[in-house]
Amino acid sequence: MMTDFGLSDGYVGAMKGVILDILPWVQVVDVTHEIAPQNVRQAAFVLQMVAPFFPKATVFLVVVDPGVGTQRRAIAVFTDRGVFVGPDNGVFSWIFQHRKVYEIRELANPSYMRAQVSATFHGRDIFAPFAAHIAAGVPASSIGPVIHDPVSIDLPEPQAHADGHIVGEVIHIDAFGNLITNIREEHLAEGKSWRFEIAGESIDDFCRAYGFAQEGQLVALIGSLGYLEIAVRNGHAARRLNGRLGMPVIAKIVSHKH
Amino acid sequence: MMTDFGLSDGYVGAMKGVILDILPWVQVVDVTHEIAPQNVRQAAFVLQMVAPFFPKATVFLVVVDPGVGTQRRAIAVFTDRGVFVGPDNGVFSWIFQHRKVYEIRELANPSYMRAQVSATFHGRDIFAPFAAHIAAGVPASSIGPVIHDPVSIDLPEPQAHADGHIVGEVIHIDAFGNLITNIREEHLAEGKSWRFEIAGESIDDFCRAYGFAQEGQLVALIGSLGYLEIAVRNGHAARRLNGRLGMPVIAKIVSHKH
Amino acid sequence: MMTDFGLSDGYVGAMKGVILDILPWVQVVDVTHEIAPQNVRQAAFVLQMVAPFFPKATVFLVVVDPGVGTQRRAIAVFTDRGVFVGPDNGVFSWIFQHRKVYEIRELANPSYMRAQVSATFHGRDIFAPFAAHIAAGVPASSIGPVIHDPVSIDLPEPQAHADGHIVGEVIHIDAFGNLITNIREEHLAEGKSWRFEIAGESIDDFCRAYGFAQEGQLVALIGSLGYLEIAVRNGHAARRLNGRLGMPVIAKIVSHKH
Repeated sequence: MMTDFGLSDGYVGAMKGVILDILPWVQVVDVTHEIAPQNVRQAAFVLQMVAPFFPKATVFLVVVDPGVGTQRRAIAVFTDRGVFVGPDNGVFSWIFQHRKVYEIRELANPSYMRAQVSATFHGRDIFAPFAAHIAAGVPASSIGPVIHDPVSIDLPEPQAHADGHIVGEVIHIDAFGNLITNIREEHLAEGKSWRFEIAGESIDDFCRAYGFAQEGQLVALIGSLGYLEIAVRNGHAARRLNGRLGMPVIAKIVSHKH
Repeated sequence: MMTDFGLSDGYVGAMKGVILDILPWVQVVDVTHEIAPQNVRQAAFVLQMVAPFFPKATVFLVVVDPGVGTQRRAIAVFTDRGVFVGPDNGVFSWIFQHRKVYEIRELANPSYMRAQVSATFHGRDIFAPFAAHIAAGVPASSIGPVIHDPVSIDLPEPQAHADGHIVGEVIHIDAFGNLITNIREEHLAEGKSWRFEIAGESIDDFCRAYGFAQEGQLVALIGSLGYLEIAVRNGHAARRLNGRLGMPVIAKIVSHKH
Repeated sequence: MMTDFGLSDGYVGAMKGVILDILPWVQVVDVTHEIAPQNVRQAAFVLQMVAPFFPKATVFLVVVDPGVGTQRRAIAVFTDRGVFVGPDNGVFSWIFQHRKVYEIRELANPSYMRAQVSATFHGRDIFAPFAAHIAAGVPASSIGPVIHDPVSIDLPEPQAHADGHIVGEVIHIDAFGNLITNIREEHLAEGKSWRFEIAGESIDDFCRAYGFAQEGQLVALIGSLGYLEIAVRNGHAARRLNGRLGMPVIAKIVSHKH
């Protein structure tokens, strides 16, 4: 499960209780509850960091839900890599684009909700009980009507310029302070030498791994998800560069191969 | 399990190890380990946020224990909604008032403790092993003597004035900065219009859900536990109002229905 | 599992996914993910806080790995108290010194890694899948070659002086601000009266437990792991003393018994 509730309150605990009350033997796995409050885009990014690695029968419960209590729909997305349960606010955008989606259903059947649904905590009253019932094997057709127009948010794509330069941006800052950009390995032609520019600093070519860099050195590397990352060896790139989401990153081909 | 140990040390991990060493197949569920250090009152509040939702056979292990190593007793509270294991310092006050309590036992039988009991970590040496043995099904009568005088702390109640005004206070601040008060839905007569006053600001009537408020608007609503909450749409009410526990909140009936 | 990844990203979630995809019914237990970034020494300390308490068949997955992607080896340590899987960087030093080690193997067999191994995230691509396969029961001999020269870091030992004084240092600061030193119960002769000096303050003799001290009093006690701890009753010793790792602590025998 993934939420923006933090762990200092009982919100996550209440959801776990609801799930285990319906399906006592299921294993409830915490992915993170530290998504920035109501940051749907960040949740969408972190979801794609983890979703490909779980068993195919996993039910993913994602509650980052600024529109709770309004008319935004609640959905379940059935894919080749598990079922995704959460609000229809774009948090599953990456799933729509990269997984095989069998069908999307609205969470409508009141039998799978708590008897009393609050206006402010659908995580406990709608999403958690639906996730538990889906994990228990209720048929998809009993959940609610099929949906063909889920909300999708545009994930920013890097721009390739005629001179071969690529302009991307920072799309995630991890807990180590690494700046993860939307430039992917396949954007950067092999056999070329690249220079990367960010925040007025310039980085010559790739580093193979953090451990090969010098202490405090600013490096560019292809991270574990295939994205270009800007990092500082045993340091915090975000603090050093005053990094923020959306900050531009430019990749330039340099003429000489070194 | 719920503690004030945080997760940066091994305290919680040691407790999990002790439990699993006794009962390898039990599912250990983290509720929170971020109770403010030694804040028994906060732990009592968060416990009531989650306890009603877990399966009836749950053993709740709660270790917020400023009196560890002194003569304060260790107890197990058997109720219609699970067994609560922890120090006898008032952390179960809400349970005593709102659940059907079958009996309370002192954790006295040394067979269910670790062989060596430290003076500073009863979570690992007493509470965790008792919780595991209780989950494993040892008879209540073997735990220790029955207790009739557990420690209970007074949870503050709102005051109703002759003119119909109600004076409550903030009893919890959640991770979103929402101020949760001790005024409950049933205190606020239906069919009346209410105005809420807090920290020199005034809020007219309820908002149905966060999503219906304007960005940055201060709103009052009935939260998912039935308490009056003061919140800011996509903001942080506690920071805006300089909120703190005990801060007074006044609910007034306004003459005109709008 | 124990890492320095924090929980705000998907790193830990991805590792959990990999484990459950290999061994769906294993119980994945979070010990902590809040080890200070790349602090191998702290991880080694926290590991010894928890390792003795888990079932004997536990597989401990520890990923604090500043050398990821370089030639540092990946290992599995088979002991009388479980199997320890992680980088060969000293994080298992305490295990080498205090547990019966049967053998140490390098994680070399590509069958137990992910097909594609990234340069920056061996937690997901090497350590997690090996841990899952070991928990599933693959023979040790199939993992990789035996290693006889694992990296071990010196854990600082207190110095005993001719006059009976003992000079130790702070080796851990816990989330309550307690300063845990490397002076152990067995270093302090019984029947003697001791005075402890730290940061220009002096503490006369032991306190039996936090609860016996006065509010705000600076006390010395033997903590739950057998180490001398400096604490403040309902306070934060590290803030009061400006505590830091390596800060010296002196234990002196005082002539009169009081």
